[in-house]
Amino acid sequence: MQKETFQRRLSDLRRRMGDSGIDVALLWEPDNQYYLSGFRAISYSRPIVYIIYMDKTQYIIPELEKDHAKKEAHTDELFVYHEKIQERDKDTDYIQPLNRIIDDMDANTVVGLEMNIAPAFIYQHLSQKGYELKDIGQALIDLRAVKDQDEIYWIEQASYLSDLALEASFKNLHVGMSELEFDAHGDQALLAKASELYPHIEIGFENWTCSGIERSSMPHLYSSTRRFVENDVVVHSRQIWVNNYRVENERTFLIGNPTEEQKKCLKLAIDAQRAGIEAVKPGVQARDVDIASFQVFEEAGYADYVQHRIGHGLGLTEHEEPYLRFDNDLVLEEGMVYTIEPGIYIPGVGGFRHSDTVIVTENGSRTITEYPRELQDMMF
Amino acid sequence: MQKETFQRRLSDLRRRMGDSGIDVALLWEPDNQYYLSGFRAISYSRPIVYIIYMDKTQYIIPELEKDHAKKEAHTDELFVYHEKIQERDKDTDYIQPLNRIIDDMDANTVVGLEMNIAPAFIYQHLSQKGYELKDIGQALIDLRAVKDQDEIYWIEQASYLSDLALEASFKNLHVGMSELEFDAHGDQALLAKASELYPHIEIGFENWTCSGIERSSMPHLYSSTRRFVENDVVVHSRQIWVNNYRVENERTFLIGNPTEEQKKCLKLAIDAQRAGIEAVKPGVQARDVDIASFQVFEEAGYADYVQHRIGHGLGLTEHEEPYLRFDNDLVLEEGMVYTIEPGIYIPGVGGFRHSDTVIVTENGSRTITEYPRELQDMMF
Repeated sequence: MQKETFQRRLSDLRRRMGDSGIDVALLWEPDNQYYLSGFRAISYSRPIVYIIYMDKTQYIIPELEKDHAKKEAHTDELFVYHEKIQERDKDTDYIQPLNRIIDDMDANTVVGLEMNIAPAFIYQHLSQKGYELKDIGQALIDLRAVKDQDEIYWIEQASYLSDLALEASFKNLHVGMSELEFDAHGDQALLAKASELYPHIEIGFENWTCSGIERSSMPHLYSSTRRFVENDVVVHSRQIWVNNYRVENERTFLIGNPTEEQKKCLKLAIDAQRAGIEAVKPGVQARDVDIASFQVFEEAGYADYVQHRIGHGLGLTEHEEPYLRFDNDLVLEEGMVYTIEPGIYIPGVGGFRHSDTVIVTENGSRTITEYPRELQDMMF
Repeated sequence: MQKETFQRRLSDLRRRMGDSGIDVALLWEPDNQYYLSGFRAISYSRPIVYIIYMDKTQYIIPELEKDHAKKEAHTDELFVYHEKIQERDKDTDYIQPLNRIIDDMDANTVVGLEMNIAPAFIYQHLSQKGYELKDIGQALIDLRAVKDQDEIYWIEQASYLSDLALEASFKNLHVGMSELEFDAHGDQALLAKASELYPHIEIGFENWTCSGIERSSMPHLYSSTRRFVENDVVVHSRQIWVNNYRVENERTFLIGNPTEEQKKCLKLAIDAQRAGIEAVKPGVQARDVDIASFQVFEEAGYADYVQHRIGHGLGLTEHEEPYLRFDNDLVLEEGMVYTIEPGIYIPGVGGFRHSDTVIVTENGSRTITEYPRELQDMMF
């Protein structure tokens, strides 16, 4: 992405900081850091903090990310901490530069933290030093909710690859293969195609395949070595990210001779999804989309088997706010990206849920995951 | 795992809570929750809190995890929050049951939080209510550092699969394939074998393959679509988890005609790793292991190219404390599990690092990742 993109995003954030009276933001969340600076590290045990003042930015990073950050991070200043013995007289922990930065702040500085993400100890530390603390997390949620053209481009590339992965998994589907083997066919196909199309791009994927009546009835499980058997209901869920931007593509399918009720339930999930997708357009509220799907289940007498909202935002993070929930009055805008994935989960029958990714357009929405989704396409 | 395992772990934690004067622990970290209760959900946007009193435990979970938690969580009480419209009069957010739990506490209750992990807002909330807060995170790090037999069993299964994955990736290695394609061969082989050996087990993997002089010189990057070319230096890193327990297995390899310096550097990394592994035994300090490897680089004049510690703990989390660092005086104990992965990163030459997983035994250590690692094995 262009330097101008990060400058624009930083300006937007600073305007929101100004509106809230925040003087400096200390950001912990890797996707927020990437969104504002273009730099995303594998961090785990080595904390990275991005600090945004009104007139400059700073990064605290471990030494092993120094070259990476120099190459990619749009920032004014890098503080590096070390973990090798000959640097023992320099900073050897991120707390050291962080403390100096904090101690340099005016006593009346108002500090912004991602209150739902930043660790408890930094709240403790800053409040004990007497600084006023405010949430900056919501501002970042709002900012990130509306995607720009670059972001939509990468989400669309991920969509294309996800359809291709589903095609490869389904092409290889057979009784006796495990959930993880089913996933792996898609993985291998998408990586081969991606390697052909996008040189020097980071790509990743996650799958959650739940097969059989018991596992599919739980909406959220990791793929396992359970093997498909005749008459399984299977919920196959896939996320792919290309250049950090994600798409979600899920299909429920029936192997062998499903019961009439299983077919009815899958048809219902498909109808509910269609109703949800049709409800998406600028100006409607998040609640309207959730309720549109829910009503399909309710009218058929299956309301009790709904366990979750219809969808979530999507972009850099697996599940992004804002959520499409019955109690969210957020007004949808062009450029927002959502999953639409209403589901029902019935003990002794199975779980039924497709998920597709839609982009809010000027007049409605565009569904960018295109793998076939009708009942007849989902029986094997 | 057996019920007794979780009872023993809970007793250990409660003893530590008692020693620190903590009355109740509120745990956010999914691996800590799993360690103490056997329940691990895909959580993302739906928070899960595990609450440990001296005489009971409670879980706050989203409705879509209810059946999953009932099946797997060792706990006395479940509080479920909802996100569908017909439950609007019940709890629809995890904050509601959490607030009731907090309000029921005696005014002088001392609350334990994972200070490096729990979100800032809960610190804010509890401290505004006047509760005294203490860290419980370190107690969990200490508890988890020494693995029991069940844990070591699963780590060994993961090791076996990781060796098999490396074998498949190397068997398919050729110039022109991308980093991600190289990874995918290993993925597919390990999933096929795992499906054969371990029915109904959750398995996952992550790879970080950095090829070419520039990318391999950065110790930590996600795999990309970059294709291997003649004379590449490649650092291929793989983690696998079986039943949530992880292993790490990394190899640096040379394609084509490496320079004498590249061969020398890889040989040095191998020697430094051997020195580190030989230093591991009960009673030595973490620092001794780090320094044993470092001295090999230093004596050869390559100390300036070291960027990171020699290794990290391994178990449920990618990188677990305690770390093998020059400034850690922790004494190693039987049953601890570490990666040994000294590396050097030289601009214009490449990055050189193997990583193997070792278990501290009664008299020394056992290296459980066994893929060949000598220089002659790493030239293609």
